[in-house]
Amino acid sequence: MAFTLEDIVGQFGGEVVGDASHRVGSLAPLDQAAPDQLAFLANPKYLSQVESTRAGAVLINADDLAKLASREGRNFIVTPNPYAYFARIAQTFIDLAAPKPVPGVHPGATVDPSAQIAASAVIGPNVTIEAGVVIGERVRLDANVFIGRGTQIGEGAHLYPNVTVYHGCKLGDRIIVHAGAVIGSDGFGFAPDFVGEGDARTGNWVKIPQVGGVSIGPDVEIGANTTIDRGAMADTVIEECVKIDNLVQIGHNCKVGAYTVIAGCAGIAGSTTIGRHCMIGGAVGIAGHVTLADYVIVTAKSGVSKSLLKPGMYTSAFPAVDHADWNRSAAIMRNLDKLRDRIKALEAATAAHASTDKA
Amino acid sequence: MAFTLEDIVGQFGGEVVGDASHRVGSLAPLDQAAPDQLAFLANPKYLSQVESTRAGAVLINADDLAKLASREGRNFIVTPNPYAYFARIAQTFIDLAAPKPVPGVHPGATVDPSAQIAASAVIGPNVTIEAGVVIGERVRLDANVFIGRGTQIGEGAHLYPNVTVYHGCKLGDRIIVHAGAVIGSDGFGFAPDFVGEGDARTGNWVKIPQVGGVSIGPDVEIGANTTIDRGAMADTVIEECVKIDNLVQIGHNCKVGAYTVIAGCAGIAGSTTIGRHCMIGGAVGIAGHVTLADYVIVTAKSGVSKSLLKPGMYTSAFPAVDHADWNRSAAIMRNLDKLRDRIKALEAATAAHASTDKA
Amino acid sequence: MAFTLEDIVGQFGGEVVGDASHRVGSLAPLDQAAPDQLAFLANPKYLSQVESTRAGAVLINADDLAKLASREGRNFIVTPNPYAYFARIAQTFIDLAAPKPVPGVHPGATVDPSAQIAASAVIGPNVTIEAGVVIGERVRLDANVFIGRGTQIGEGAHLYPNVTVYHGCKLGDRIIVHAGAVIGSDGFGFAPDFVGEGDARTGNWVKIPQVGGVSIGPDVEIGANTTIDRGAMADTVIEECVKIDNLVQIGHNCKVGAYTVIAGCAGIAGSTTIGRHCMIGGAVGIAGHVTLADYVIVTAKSGVSKSLLKPGMYTSAFPAVDHADWNRSAAIMRNLDKLRDRIKALEAATAAHASTDKA
Repeated sequence: MAFTLEDIVGQFGGEVVGDASHRVGSLAPLDQAAPDQLAFLANPKYLSQVESTRAGAVLINADDLAKLASREGRNFIVTPNPYAYFARIAQTFIDLAAPKPVPGVHPGATVDPSAQIAASAVIGPNVTIEAGVVIGERVRLDANVFIGRGTQIGEGAHLYPNVTVYHGCKLGDRIIVHAGAVIGSDGFGFAPDFVGEGDARTGNWVKIPQVGGVSIGPDVEIGANTTIDRGAMADTVIEECVKIDNLVQIGHNCKVGAYTVIAGCAGIAGSTTIGRHCMIGGAVGIAGHVTLADYVIVTAKSGVSKSLLKPGMYTSAFPAVDHADWNRSAAIMRNLDKLRDRIKALEAATAAHASTDKA
Repeated sequence: MAFTLEDIVGQFGGEVVGDASHRVGSLAPLDQAAPDQLAFLANPKYLSQVESTRAGAVLINADDLAKLASREGRNFIVTPNPYAYFARIAQTFIDLAAPKPVPGVHPGATVDPSAQIAASAVIGPNVTIEAGVVIGERVRLDANVFIGRGTQIGEGAHLYPNVTVYHGCKLGDRIIVHAGAVIGSDGFGFAPDFVGEGDARTGNWVKIPQVGGVSIGPDVEIGANTTIDRGAMADTVIEECVKIDNLVQIGHNCKVGAYTVIAGCAGIAGSTTIGRHCMIGGAVGIAGHVTLADYVIVTAKSGVSKSLLKPGMYTSAFPAVDHADWNRSAAIMRNLDKLRDRIKALEAATAAHASTDKA
Repeated sequence: MAFTLEDIVGQFGGEVVGDASHRVGSLAPLDQAAPDQLAFLANPKYLSQVESTRAGAVLINADDLAKLASREGRNFIVTPNPYAYFARIAQTFIDLAAPKPVPGVHPGATVDPSAQIAASAVIGPNVTIEAGVVIGERVRLDANVFIGRGTQIGEGAHLYPNVTVYHGCKLGDRIIVHAGAVIGSDGFGFAPDFVGEGDARTGNWVKIPQVGGVSIGPDVEIGANTTIDRGAMADTVIEECVKIDNLVQIGHNCKVGAYTVIAGCAGIAGSTTIGRHCMIGGAVGIAGHVTLADYVIVTAKSGVSKSLLKPGMYTSAFPAVDHADWNRSAAIMRNLDKLRDRIKALEAATAAHASTDKA
């Protein structure tokens, strides 16, 4: 399997500089690539590697190409975004190399007769599909996936093993859900019904039924063991092209805007709205019932307790330092008001003194 | 399916004001409800919506009812806690509408002959039940649930798909466990058995066998992909009516008191005791071997490193602010001791000056 | 089942002081042990319990033994590390007592004909094993485990129920993976391919194919619902004897050095290298592309944003305190630069005053 540079730009765009009939069959980093491999330059600081690479061709943007001392004997595909170009072509090479799953329903799957399953779908062993489910063309449900009654899975979606999707959810076309993720579990809602205080308190929590669903747009990717709760009345909504990492929790009735990315271990409490094109860092926590504007960036480990209505970068995390140094500062931090009061007293004394001096 | 208001108060309590023979068949928010629907007022700030609602009846408390300008042509069910009342009736409506699972063991389940399974239990496809397990009446084990040897599941419990319960655990009546949760995995315990320092260190970690179980009281709810470890010698204990959200980690030999709620992404290290009626916020971390009194509230993203022996609210988290502003303060924070020393020096200079003045 | 103290030291080392023919059959804490039980002293503060215990024998180190007022009528096994000794012997007792799983492949498992499965392996119900997988001797794969194509599982490994291992991974001998863990899911990598700003932005995220695997050394233990992503090009690497708790996220292309322990809810972003013998506390977050030296300790809930190149303990977490007190200090913290400016002004005033005085 090898392709001419001409074939490649025919499919992916860009322009060949050099020998368009040169063939490449795989991808490699600049410093390791062989003449039958394609490399890429995403960061100009590695420009010198382009000068010395043995790669059969290099993906490069026009600015960086112009900086090269010599193009002699080298081949290039010129594209504005070599990294994205690389990603697209790599995916194609992988798809060509991967074993093709055979369409059909594995005999070990359990499928309700009322479910509609497209003929090109691949349903793995021990998958359970309940009543009224609709599975689109070319969907892959890997081993042990569970799809609850009435849920719809869009075309080309791929759910990895041990994923659970509860009833009444909608997953868009080409969505990818990694292993162990749970979509549509009950939101965390309980009405307090207690009387009395302290040891005399009686009563209980009353579960608020969660009758909304989860609605996920096309081209969303959801990480391993991530959880997205169903809404209480209306749906929890994840818009198109959102990318969510592993072990993320998204509470009931949240809405996450298109193109937003959420890194691992982040947690978003219920009824919060996140705008489009946001970037939520790893282990960020966001309170319930707040709103983040479009283009908000929250850096890793920060906590958001109020709405952030302007685009921009927000932070509340400290970097780890020497333990003893930290503890020294942390002890003072706990009494910052006393430190401030001492400054106030000094200011008063200095002011009094100044007026004495003038007098 | 519609019920008279009289039927409803007969089952759930409260008092009808208006036409007790009026029929409602579903629930809706005040501003959307139709004459055959039941709405509720939980927050007096929405009182004006009660004046304009088209709902067939409104759940309301006596104080709010007294504030209404007119009750003319309207129906009410008066109850001290309309929100909890709403939750209970909603659950009933949902239970009536949901498909009734058929009791019995799915032919794709794997059940040890020594397990005792109540006749009314519903055992789904690909469920595995090991030797000596006891499953109570009306239990639902959804697809791919695993129950280890000797574990007991109380009446009316519902374990969603892909839940794993290890051997030797006890789950109380009516417990709900959401998909992907793991109960009874080994606690994280290793004895260091190393000799020497640095590169010369030899030896290894020795696993401490975890031979306790997990004991969970009735009416507990456990969120998706939450993990609760088994005890080292004695059991990890979750008391009745505790509510635990998604992606929570509870270490070995913890004890969580009745009615306590724990929000998503919280982590509780081993051998910690949490009192009754506590509220643990999202992403809170609690160290091992500490004790929290009854009625302790820890706000979201805070860290607890010492026992909190008095009821009250505790915090150690900052809200995210503009990134540059934060970094400016954070840099000073790292040297708070120097700031304090400068204040000390000023205080000394001011005191010296004052005595000079007096002199 | 009971063993003489002589039998025990024959197998586990150490030296008997007292009656080497005395038999013990189980383990118990010092204050609860009976004459046919073995107890241990790991912490000298419990030395008085050794004086009063009814245990048939006590594991103790030579220093502590020397401190005892009397050894009269008591039996001891003397060993430098009684806790590790206890752990080893406890594991043996448990292994002897546990039901022996019967080697073979459960008829409900789905195994590709090209997979190589050792005769002594135990493959549970609903396990899926894809093409080219290699399963070593005495491996246990519990119910619903999924092993992707070409993955290798070393001898004596135990994967608990509902574990997912993607294709192309290598798991070392004697590895333990707890329920629900996911190994080899795609790393979180997307190339931005957007043009324009704000509402005019067009384009999309392009998925970076993740074609590396995960390589895990022998004697590693991985907690429930933990996720370890596969590498983008090269492997994610977990070296031998690493111990990882529940709900931990390890990003693509991380390398975790031998003997390091990582507590629950920690998250490590991609391409980070952690040294050997490190201790990463619960809920710690570590940024991507940083390096931690050997013997680094990061305390619970801290965040690491830069490399830590020297051994030692690092921290950036505050302990929770009274909510109102915290908020008072936190408000000042947000304006620490203003506090510092006031100190500067005071210093200037004091210096001016001092020079006036001299004048």
